[in-house]
Amino acid sequence: MNPIEALFHQLSLGVYIVGAAHNEQRDAFTAAWVMQVSFTPLLLAVSIHPEHASYPLLKEAQAFTVNVLKRGQLEIARRFGTRSGREYDKLAGVRWHPGRSGAPVLDDGLAYFDCELTDRFPAGDHELMLGRVVEGGIIDPNAVPMTYRETGDMDRSSTLFPLQF
Amino acid sequence: MNPIEALFHQLSLGVYIVGAAHNEQRDAFTAAWVMQVSFTPLLLAVSIHPEHASYPLLKEAQAFTVNVLKRGQLEIARRFGTRSGREYDKLAGVRWHPGRSGAPVLDDGLAYFDCELTDRFPAGDHELMLGRVVEGGIIDPNAVPMTYRETGDMDRSSTLFPLQF
Repeated sequence: MNPIEALFHQLSLGVYIVGAAHNEQRDAFTAAWVMQVSFTPLLLAVSIHPEHASYPLLKEAQAFTVNVLKRGQLEIARRFGTRSGREYDKLAGVRWHPGRSGAPVLDDGLAYFDCELTDRFPAGDHELMLGRVVEGGIIDPNAVPMTYRETGDMDRSSTLFPLQF
Repeated sequence: MNPIEALFHQLSLGVYIVGAAHNEQRDAFTAAWVMQVSFTPLLLAVSIHPEHASYPLLKEAQAFTVNVLKRGQLEIARRFGTRSGREYDKLAGVRWHPGRSGAPVLDDGLAYFDCELTDRFPAGDHELMLGRVVEGGIIDPNAVPMTYRETGDMDRSSTLFPLQF
């Protein structure tokens, strides 16, 4: 692991499935760059690449869900982490129900947040999407959240870190 | 714990000491709302309350450091988490050296990021400060990062969660 990648691995992150739905379209993807940023109102920030297949859907829907994965749910993280989201329905075969906006809430997740998109800000090669949490709940109170560290290099981010600052 | 607080505790966060220096002034504070948001350039986002004692300092300095705490460093987290930062020098008695901007790098931390402030965006009752990582390193490669969960209600955030959405 290059030193810069090793450094950034010291940041503590979770693993989430971010979902959106608009008209007849729906999609969801694995994300680690999610955190709370405000108490009043309750806001989450999600950093997403504008070329990501789900980006236009979140923008059009003006809403998204954030599903918290449990420790050990690597298969789900992998399923929604694949970059071929446009080619098949990643949600087929996964138990879910629509949230307020129609965005998928995973029935086997640990918890979920149902958000209304309130703002978008440029952040380097990504964009920060801020969502007001309008609903949410814990589905499995006995589970432990999955950590990003647990996923190893599943997302192949090792290739994205520069060799020097 | 109220249900909304319990829900937000399912987000995985670390514990960091964010520092800044400008002219003869320097300060640092404990933060959990820190994450990477971009690869090119390498950006961190920190969500900070505009009424926080350190806020004007970060703004004036246009730079900040992010120090990653190790599991068990609760005393340091508590020291820099106190809201009476203006009354005494929280850095006295802690081993540190100045980073590029003069912002404190803790010698006993796990790792540090030295950032140049590139953008500020409103985020509800907080503000998102984006910092380009221009330097950084791992100080103790054998340590494990502290998780926010480990700190319990040290920051008394339990009072900040609403009882309903």
